[in-house]
Amino acid sequence: MATVRLLTDIEAAADPRVAAVFADIRATRQSDFVNNFWRALACQPDVLEATWARLKVVMAPGALDPLTKELLYIAVSATNGCSYCVHSHTAAARAKGLTDAQHAEFLAVLGMAAQTNQLVTALQVPVDAEFQVQT
Amino acid sequence: MATVRLLTDIEAAADPRVAAVFADIRATRQSDFVNNFWRALACQPDVLEATWARLKVVMAPGALDPLTKELLYIAVSATNGCSYCVHSHTAAARAKGLTDAQHAEFLAVLGMAAQTNQLVTALQVPVDAEFQVQT
Amino acid sequence: MATVRLLTDIEAAADPRVAAVFADIRATRQSDFVNNFWRALACQPDVLEATWARLKVVMAPGALDPLTKELLYIAVSATNGCSYCVHSHTAAARAKGLTDAQHAEFLAVLGMAAQTNQLVTALQVPVDAEFQVQT
Amino acid sequence: MATVRLLTDIEAAADPRVAAVFADIRATRQSDFVNNFWRALACQPDVLEATWARLKVVMAPGALDPLTKELLYIAVSATNGCSYCVHSHTAAARAKGLTDAQHAEFLAVLGMAAQTNQLVTALQVPVDAEFQVQT
Amino acid sequence: MATVRLLTDIEAAADPRVAAVFADIRATRQSDFVNNFWRALACQPDVLEATWARLKVVMAPGALDPLTKELLYIAVSATNGCSYCVHSHTAAARAKGLTDAQHAEFLAVLGMAAQTNQLVTALQVPVDAEFQVQT
Amino acid sequence: MATVRLLTDIEAAADPRVAAVFADIRATRQSDFVNNFWRALACQPDVLEATWARLKVVMAPGALDPLTKELLYIAVSATNGCSYCVHSHTAAARAKGLTDAQHAEFLAVLGMAAQTNQLVTALQVPVDAEFQVQT
Repeated sequence: MATVRLLTDIEAAADPRVAAVFADIRATRQSDFVNNFWRALACQPDVLEATWARLKVVMAPGALDPLTKELLYIAVSATNGCSYCVHSHTAAARAKGLTDAQHAEFLAVLGMAAQTNQLVTALQVPVDAEFQVQT
Repeated sequence: MATVRLLTDIEAAADPRVAAVFADIRATRQSDFVNNFWRALACQPDVLEATWARLKVVMAPGALDPLTKELLYIAVSATNGCSYCVHSHTAAARAKGLTDAQHAEFLAVLGMAAQTNQLVTALQVPVDAEFQVQT
Repeated sequence: MATVRLLTDIEAAADPRVAAVFADIRATRQSDFVNNFWRALACQPDVLEATWARLKVVMAPGALDPLTKELLYIAVSATNGCSYCVHSHTAAARAKGLTDAQHAEFLAVLGMAAQTNQLVTALQVPVDAEFQVQT
Repeated sequence: MATVRLLTDIEAAADPRVAAVFADIRATRQSDFVNNFWRALACQPDVLEATWARLKVVMAPGALDPLTKELLYIAVSATNGCSYCVHSHTAAARAKGLTDAQHAEFLAVLGMAAQTNQLVTALQVPVDAEFQVQT
Repeated sequence: MATVRLLTDIEAAADPRVAAVFADIRATRQSDFVNNFWRALACQPDVLEATWARLKVVMAPGALDPLTKELLYIAVSATNGCSYCVHSHTAAARAKGLTDAQHAEFLAVLGMAAQTNQLVTALQVPVDAEFQVQT
Repeated sequence: MATVRLLTDIEAAADPRVAAVFADIRATRQSDFVNNFWRALACQPDVLEATWARLKVVMAPGALDPLTKELLYIAVSATNGCSYCVHSHTAAARAKGLTDAQHAEFLAVLGMAAQTNQLVTALQVPVDAEFQVQT
C-alpha cells in the first residue's frame, strides 16, 4: 500500500548504507524488529541515514524522560492525522510503561487542546500582553 | 481583532454565570489575571461554563504531572497552528517550571515528529502487525 | 503584509479582466466594497477570474441556504487556521442574520467536532460496517 | 486496528459507569446500535462520560437545526482528515434527511473553502478593517 | 468504503453530463482508465463538471512543467494527510518521469519543511521586515 | 512576539556554537542578513546546529533545482498555515527567479490540490488498485 517498496532484510543487506542503519536500529533498540517506516525510507538511503541519526539523538533520555517524549510524539502525530505514527508511538509508549490511567489523562488533554484551539481560532482571540516574552 | 467582543470585568460582572466562572478562574489560579480566551468566550455563557468546567478537571494534577500536560497542550496547539494557544501554554509551562534544556528537547521532539509524520504520509507506510492491539 | 501587492481601484481599472471581476463583485454584492482577498488575487488575473466565477455559483442560494453555507465556510476556515477567512466569513454570516444564540451553538459544535476528531485519531477507531455505503 | 480494545456489550456491562453511558446512548438515539467510537472510549470511563455528556447537549436541537449541526461536524472532520468521523457523521446526516442536492452543494462549499483558505494563506492577505469587530 | 457510490461506466453512460466528463478525461489522458475520484464525484454532476474543467486547465503545461505541478500536488496532499491524493499523484508523477533521485530529494524537502514549520510555530517567530512586499 | 528571545549579533557572538552557525549561514548565502528563524532557534544551540546542518544539505541544488525546492517548501508551509515560512520562502523563491506567471500557476495548483484533497476526504474515496506499488 506504500508509494515505494518496503525493503526486505535481504534487500537491505545489499546496500551497505541501509545495512548499517538497520544494524544500528537493532543494536539501539536491542530488538531484531525493524518496522515498516525504516523499510520504506530505505529506498532513499540519504533520507534514511539523516532521519535515523537525528531521531536517535532526539528520543534519547535527557532533560525530558523517554515516556514524555513518546507522548509528545503521539500528540503531534494525532493532530497531524498520521495513523501509522499514532500506532507506532502508542506501542512505544506502552513499552516504556504508559499506564491506562496516564493514557486516559493523555487523551483528555489532547481532546481539550484540540477543542480550545478550535474555539480560539473561530474567535480569533488576540494574544494577551502578559504572554509576550520580554526582549 | 477577535470576531466577538472581549468582555471587561464590569461587563462580566453583569452576567451572574460569567461572573461565577471568572471568580472560579481567579480562585483556582490564585491570580487576578483572566486572559483573553475567557473574555472572548464570555459572549457565549454556555460554552464558557462547559469549557472551563472541563479544562479545570483535565489540567489538574493526576497520573500525568501538570508540566507534562502543558507540554502536550503546546504540542497539539503548535501542530494546529494556534498562535494564541502556543503563547498562553508556553507561558503556563514556564510558570510550572519548564527549563531551557527541557524546552530545547521539547522543540527537537516536535520538529522530529512533524518531519516523520510528513515522510510517513508521503510514503503511505502500512501499519506493522506488531503495532496492532490484541483484542 | 501580503506576499503580493494588493491592487488599488486605479490599478484594477488598468486591466480589463480585473476590472470586469471587480465590477461583477460590486454588482453581485450590491456594495462598493471589494475586500483584500480579491485585491491580492488580482495580481494573477487567471486565478482571480476562475475563483470568483466558481465562488459566485457555489455560494448562491440553492438546496442549502446562504447562512448555512457561510457557517460551513467558517468551519472549514477555522479548522484550517485561516485567520483572514474566519474574519471575512464571520462578518458575512452576521450580515446574513447570524444571531448570538446561533453563534454560540456553532462554536460548541466546532469545538466538539475538533475534540472528538482528535480522540478518534488518537484511538484509531475503525469504521463501523453500519456506516459503509451499500454499492 | 484501534490503539485500545473496543469493549463488547458484555465487557461494558461489567463497569457501571460504562454501562450507564451505553444505556443513555441507546435511549437518546432510540437504537440498540452503539458505534465503535464509544466502545473505544469505554476503556477510559472518565473521558467517555465527559464526552458523551457534552456531545448530547451540543448536538441537541436548538438555535441551529440538527442537520446543520451534522454538516458542520462533517466539515470540521473532513478538514481534519478524520476518516471515521466523516463516515459516522455523513451517515447521521443522511439519517436526518440530507438530500443528494444538499450533499452536492455541501461538497462544493467545502471544496471552495479549502481552496480559498489555501490561496489566502499562500498570499498572506491582511484582514480588512471592515471585518474587525467594534469593541 | 466511500460515503457515496462509485459510478460504474454503465451508470456514468446514463447521465449525459457525467458521460461527457468521463469521455473528456479519457481523451485528455489518452487512457481508458477513469480513477475512483471521478467515479465518486459523478454522484454530483455539477461538482464533477466544475472540478474537471478547472483541473484540466490548472495541470496543463505552462510556466511550470507538468512534473513540478505533480510534485506540488503531492506536497499539499501529504501535508493535508490525503492518502488517496498522495497515491494518485505519486503515480502520476512517476508516469511523468519522476526519478528515484528526485523522489529522495522531494521527500527530504517535504520533511524539512514540516519540521521547520513546526519549530517556527512553536517559537512564534515574527516575520522579518525584509520579507515584506513593498506596496 | 516570539515565545523565546531573538538573539542579537552580539549575543550570538557570545556562544561559539551559535556564532559558528551564524557565520556559516552568512557564508553559504553570501549575505550578512540572518533572519529571525535562526535568531529564535539560537536559544537552543543543539536544535539550531542540527536544523541548519540538515537544511543546508536538503536545499542545495541536486536532482531538483533550487526554485522547485522553494516552491515545494511554500506548498507545505501554506498548507500548514505557517505564515512566517510562507513569507520567507516566497521571498527566497523570488530571489531565485520566480516569475509572476510561475507564481500564478503555482497558486492555481495549490488551490486545486487543497480543493480536491477536501473533496476526496469528504467522499472517502478508496485508492484504486492501479495506484498501488507492486512489491
